[in-house]
Amino acid sequence: MTATVIERAPLNTALLAALRQRLGDRLSTSAAVCAQHGKDESYHAPHAPDAVAFAHSTEEVAEIVSLCAKHKTPVVAFGTGTSLEGHVAALRGGVCIDLSQMNHVLRVNAEDLDATVEAGVTRKQLNEYLRDTGLFFPIDPGADASLGGMAATRASGTNAVRYGTMRENVLSLIVVLADGRVIRTARRARKSAAGYDLTRLFVGSEGTLGVITEVTVRLYGIPEAISAAVCAFPTIAEAVDTVILTIQSGVPVARIELLDEAQIDAINKYSKLNHPVAPTLFFEFHGSEAGVAEQVEMVKAIAADHGGDNFRWATNPEDRSRLWQARHDAYYAALALRPGSKGWPTDVCVPISRLADCIAETKQDLAQSSIPSALAGHVGDGNFHLIFMIDPQRPEEIAEASRLNDRMVARALAMEGTCTGEHGVGYGKIDFLDAEHGEAVEVMRSIKRALDPDDILNPGKIVRV
Amino acid sequence: MTATVIERAPLNTALLAALRQRLGDRLSTSAAVCAQHGKDESYHAPHAPDAVAFAHSTEEVAEIVSLCAKHKTPVVAFGTGTSLEGHVAALRGGVCIDLSQMNHVLRVNAEDLDATVEAGVTRKQLNEYLRDTGLFFPIDPGADASLGGMAATRASGTNAVRYGTMRENVLSLIVVLADGRVIRTARRARKSAAGYDLTRLFVGSEGTLGVITEVTVRLYGIPEAISAAVCAFPTIAEAVDTVILTIQSGVPVARIELLDEAQIDAINKYSKLNHPVAPTLFFEFHGSEAGVAEQVEMVKAIAADHGGDNFRWATNPEDRSRLWQARHDAYYAALALRPGSKGWPTDVCVPISRLADCIAETKQDLAQSSIPSALAGHVGDGNFHLIFMIDPQRPEEIAEASRLNDRMVARALAMEGTCTGEHGVGYGKIDFLDAEHGEAVEVMRSIKRALDPDDILNPGKIVRV
Repeated sequence: MTATVIERAPLNTALLAALRQRLGDRLSTSAAVCAQHGKDESYHAPHAPDAVAFAHSTEEVAEIVSLCAKHKTPVVAFGTGTSLEGHVAALRGGVCIDLSQMNHVLRVNAEDLDATVEAGVTRKQLNEYLRDTGLFFPIDPGADASLGGMAATRASGTNAVRYGTMRENVLSLIVVLADGRVIRTARRARKSAAGYDLTRLFVGSEGTLGVITEVTVRLYGIPEAISAAVCAFPTIAEAVDTVILTIQSGVPVARIELLDEAQIDAINKYSKLNHPVAPTLFFEFHGSEAGVAEQVEMVKAIAADHGGDNFRWATNPEDRSRLWQARHDAYYAALALRPGSKGWPTDVCVPISRLADCIAETKQDLAQSSIPSALAGHVGDGNFHLIFMIDPQRPEEIAEASRLNDRMVARALAMEGTCTGEHGVGYGKIDFLDAEHGEAVEVMRSIKRALDPDDILNPGKIVRV
Repeated sequence: MTATVIERAPLNTALLAALRQRLGDRLSTSAAVCAQHGKDESYHAPHAPDAVAFAHSTEEVAEIVSLCAKHKTPVVAFGTGTSLEGHVAALRGGVCIDLSQMNHVLRVNAEDLDATVEAGVTRKQLNEYLRDTGLFFPIDPGADASLGGMAATRASGTNAVRYGTMRENVLSLIVVLADGRVIRTARRARKSAAGYDLTRLFVGSEGTLGVITEVTVRLYGIPEAISAAVCAFPTIAEAVDTVILTIQSGVPVARIELLDEAQIDAINKYSKLNHPVAPTLFFEFHGSEAGVAEQVEMVKAIAADHGGDNFRWATNPEDRSRLWQARHDAYYAALALRPGSKGWPTDVCVPISRLADCIAETKQDLAQSSIPSALAGHVGDGNFHLIFMIDPQRPEEIAEASRLNDRMVARALAMEGTCTGEHGVGYGKIDFLDAEHGEAVEVMRSIKRALDPDDILNPGKIVRV
């Protein structure tokens, strides 16, 4: 998808003065700071905001948004900038609100298995904070993203097959609306039937309906036993069939990740590992000692039936951590295969019965293309990723990646899947929404108009109005 | 809550003629049929619609809604009429769309663990249909409600502690909008980050944003082992503490239900059982043989520490079914304690750390009141119910139940809980929403206005506009 260029006015001087008076040196218009805040980790063309406001509280965010609303100036929320579809690009300029300094864990309710954090707290920071409680927060999209950003993008990742995504794990949000009003989307009770599900509406809204400043998430007890293992397969089809059967058998695996041979080659080189260069599954099992043993036995039997080799185990925390770090570095590892390249990451998600076909047809496409790519994915959910390693100076490579991406999305949609399982829409996938949702996009647009009539909140993302 | 009387115009004759032409004898204006469609299972004053349309397809629903929209006539969707907060009361008259004849299971995707049904299919019907597949649909609110109604009210029930509520178990919906347009809220993939979560917006919207005509739900493999047990406790506090510790220990119980001594007495009489008349927990455990044994061992130890008596087991399907039927009949059993009474059922939900306090203070209130009542609940979620058995002819009883209900809701809200964990808002709890959500109610109202500008969809429910 190429960037939609939208008309862009210079920042109103009265607004700038008011923001500066309010924030002092926590308002920056430095070119470097603005540039850094207009780009994410993808190939998408960056679009710098005109100013960056480093907020310290919900009240400050509300004031900043109110001031911007008065001047009809765009507002883009920024966490860690690790999104992948151009989510933070300030397409129409305006003010970026950087929430990274709102990084306090406000409350851990160990008895209720929940925690409330400011939006800038990252997932690793939260887990570090929880270290002595016996609890953990499972959602792990790879990057050490902020909880606010993860809520805003409905983040998912390796553990989602067992623990769900941010959709299932956010209990409540504090949100600043387009006019500066502040709401809490829900109480802290585990369930409620008291009105529209505003929590789920804001989760995944990518800063287009409000700015999330506080997040209450579910926590889980650290399992008594955790084991991770790696298993290589003769073909990607056999690896995928192992996943499908595992899920269909109801084995509650915590993680079940696929890496194709290109991706394995990449992480071997990048992380100095020596996995056989073959389609490979990474597993993690959580439970009681007996429960994990039972799961392992079932999955080993399924894998053996599909030509899987011996399970290589990582049972102590250091080995496990090394294994998953390599998985998380897959993106950077893939890029390192082609020095100087930029990554074009994309993902789709299909019903699991269609996963083998979707991956096989996609691999066939890739085999006939000249662009280097690697495939990995959270296959237990039916979700997988491609990374194209492109030379951004060569338009024909961008065109070819775009063609392959279009075909993969069309394939996923034809299989009742979605154009993105977890990366989100941003502006990179905005043009696929009509094909996926049809008339329902108009409902999204009505909601956007109702909650942000002047289109100041992250304009040009999810739906154009 | 007393009914809000809203101005009510007679049904437009042109509309009536058009509907009759379209539906023939599937349009009824008989007083008996209309009366039956304006009341639910609660004490709330019934409000009959002016006509009832028995729809056979999404297209028909769309045509009916379009016709009503043209005449700005209210539309109330009706499944089985088992809601509890006046959800189906036609406060402003209009047309009730009865979806009970849209009762086809459209597709079961055993490989993907999901099923698509017309909105009128009931949960028991679906499970009957699934009988030979090894799969089941777990959400069980007690009544044999329709899946459309369960989605519309975000139903929950005994299994929610393990399997979640309709919020977690609806994958996708077909919805007829206020102007007759038809949308699908999502694809069939397990997760998606492709835009606003319309599925979750319509789940729990109680027919105020659209009429749900088709539901795709998650299914689960029937567990290898299922065991149910009953255990009595010396005090309700000890029973509740057993629940809290069980949940906090991460035991994946499938059901953990509390019944107070009044409720036990009621079901003993109604279902001819002989449980000790004491605060009692009903448990169900799902898993592998070894997994269930492990869960049982942990819970028995916790119960024993809190004075629980011996577990009485129901391991074969007939005994289990008898046990849960008695639990499900709790409402009717309570009413039978006072012949001629009407039930005023109400529920709240609090963070589990506050559950013991919330129940203790509520029981204290009840002890000082003259109205008979019984307490039961899905306590693993922090959710519990009261039933007041009132004489509807005696205004002082209604006033007293209202006072107790107000106090319970205020108590739950003060404990960061919600005014309803699962019954929903209807018009019975509409006046509590401001206290629970504050400014967020205004956001709900904006959404309602955006999607139903003429306020024709179940007007007077959830939010007044």
